[in-house]
Amino acid sequence: MDIKAAIAFEPGKPLRIETVRLEGPKAGEVLVELKATGLCHTDAYTLSGKDPEGLFPSILGHEGAGIVVDTGPGVTSVKKGDHVIPLYTPECRQCKSCLSRKTNLCTAIRATQGKGLMPDGSSRFHLGKDPIHHYMGTSTFAQYTVLPEIAVAKIREDAPFDKVCYIGCGVTTGVGAVIYTAKVEAGAKVVVFGLGGIGLNVVQACRLVGADQIVGVDLNPRRREMAEKFGLTHFVNPADMPANELVPYLVNLTGGGADYSFECIGNVNTMRQALECCHRGWGESIIIGVAASGQEISTRPFQLVTGRVWKGSAFGGARGRTDVPRIVDWYMEKKINVDDLITHTLPLERINEGFDLMHKGESIRTVVKY
Amino acid sequence: MDIKAAIAFEPGKPLRIETVRLEGPKAGEVLVELKATGLCHTDAYTLSGKDPEGLFPSILGHEGAGIVVDTGPGVTSVKKGDHVIPLYTPECRQCKSCLSRKTNLCTAIRATQGKGLMPDGSSRFHLGKDPIHHYMGTSTFAQYTVLPEIAVAKIREDAPFDKVCYIGCGVTTGVGAVIYTAKVEAGAKVVVFGLGGIGLNVVQACRLVGADQIVGVDLNPRRREMAEKFGLTHFVNPADMPANELVPYLVNLTGGGADYSFECIGNVNTMRQALECCHRGWGESIIIGVAASGQEISTRPFQLVTGRVWKGSAFGGARGRTDVPRIVDWYMEKKINVDDLITHTLPLERINEGFDLMHKGESIRTVVKY
Repeated sequence: MDIKAAIAFEPGKPLRIETVRLEGPKAGEVLVELKATGLCHTDAYTLSGKDPEGLFPSILGHEGAGIVVDTGPGVTSVKKGDHVIPLYTPECRQCKSCLSRKTNLCTAIRATQGKGLMPDGSSRFHLGKDPIHHYMGTSTFAQYTVLPEIAVAKIREDAPFDKVCYIGCGVTTGVGAVIYTAKVEAGAKVVVFGLGGIGLNVVQACRLVGADQIVGVDLNPRRREMAEKFGLTHFVNPADMPANELVPYLVNLTGGGADYSFECIGNVNTMRQALECCHRGWGESIIIGVAASGQEISTRPFQLVTGRVWKGSAFGGARGRTDVPRIVDWYMEKKINVDDLITHTLPLERINEGFDLMHKGESIRTVVKY
Repeated sequence: MDIKAAIAFEPGKPLRIETVRLEGPKAGEVLVELKATGLCHTDAYTLSGKDPEGLFPSILGHEGAGIVVDTGPGVTSVKKGDHVIPLYTPECRQCKSCLSRKTNLCTAIRATQGKGLMPDGSSRFHLGKDPIHHYMGTSTFAQYTVLPEIAVAKIREDAPFDKVCYIGCGVTTGVGAVIYTAKVEAGAKVVVFGLGGIGLNVVQACRLVGADQIVGVDLNPRRREMAEKFGLTHFVNPADMPANELVPYLVNLTGGGADYSFECIGNVNTMRQALECCHRGWGESIIIGVAASGQEISTRPFQLVTGRVWKGSAFGGARGRTDVPRIVDWYMEKKINVDDLITHTLPLERINEGFDLMHKGESIRTVVKY
């Protein structure tokens, strides 16, 4: 079938809307009509050309929601008409990782996904005779996309696509890091570095689980109001003090250090600060932000020997098919707020404006509605 | 009372045996007659002058065992005649750390202990009119020592002092890191960096809890035989391959990476290797070794974001009064082997020979018997 899609032809250039040919689903695959997709920093990072694993030409996008319109042979877990969220982290429930019960990082289709291909080693997208790469196994910047069955989460039918698409990445990354990776408990003291789309979801998940103190650290004072609406109890602007005073200030503010800290920026310096503001003996720091290629984190090992723990979180530690539908439920039950984070909505034709808004810091999340 | 003690008068010089005056126990304190003490790398590190927190003159030693011979007012948990192990990490059961149930790093007397003083801010040791510093709150290189009640673990009376003194530091540090910090489970695959006194205790604790694969990494091929006796399943000598091949070799040997790794050397480069040889998704690396002052660990944050966890362990995560007596029981029940690790025994007068044996790598542990 012929569909419209936004294609990334080369690094640093705007996406171009083209009509591409999409092959139907093969065995174990489903065809999904996308109804909405969010625009995430990861899409922008790949489009910029800085992602060493970025492939061109490709159809970007990994934060979608839509309806199954066709299924290939052998598909049993979803059927035509099901509402779904595509998963860039699949959940096969059969690989070593899934069976470990210790990680959400399913490895069933990792090799081909990293090459921009479907599990059988080919692409379903073509422009003329030329194949176009899939992206993160999802390629949601298209009216329709083909996905492995293990890479879709079936969700309830009353959930609005143009909101819950954000649960396909940003919401789950932030909320999940609190609930599945850190397992923050009621009464905890938390420090969140970066109050953008991820950080705000960390903040609201900390409120959801009953944290006592939720401290936000951001250079942008305009972040404060929204963050407080999401549950922030203390706003700290590092610009208000010398750089070497931030960690002692946070340790003092939290009465000895954070029980949990979250880095939602992707800066290796704030990753170190996030670790070192944790409480001696038990504080855990969770890296969510993605640092630029080649950058390294460092600290004195004494920080760890005296009880701090350094870990990370990808896709919030969430198992896509199991946990994403539950987060959709939490949204529908108003336990988490997604609506206020989606600041802009655009048609596919104006998708490049969404990236402009992101780069100017004017949006929290822009959603494209098909 | 007048007692004999080995005094560290200045950095880098041998200890000198002197007769010093020891004041009796004040409120909440006990007087312990030491029967034996181990010589640990930490004593040697402080004696070398490289420890920025080292104080002189002082009575070193933190790995002792002995008998309570007097108690100060208000002491209730031990009495005259009790066999005890001094604790450089006390357990007050009342401070924020003890009550957190998340750490063994009791902070009740940390400030004065770090200054080489008893909790009331004074020293019990004098040479002539000059006070001599306590060390790590224990000062076991003396015939008698005074300790806060919260810094002694009461142990069974049939345990031989010249063996269980080693449980006061080295054994507990290694065994505890496996059992209390990492909580290694049966079937786990483990990599241990450094097969000295700590590493061998890590190895035997991994065997105790039923680990499937226990890989040891050491440059010294003579370590292999003893380590295999303690449960090692695979010996790897990094000298047998280029430096950058060690991590991939270990990942391959463990079928994808270690479930747990332990750094028992104190080298920031092996700390990085220990983290990076862990399994994607869940591998945890525990730093036990103490790096030289000012050195830093580093890695790409991607290592953590993809599920590896970096943590540390001090005194094996063991609560001294609660867990040390249990480890003594394990020794008496032959669940762990301490005897073979104590390679040399000396009288106090020859204590400096013990440090010579350590520096030459000829001993695993030397014990001084009083």
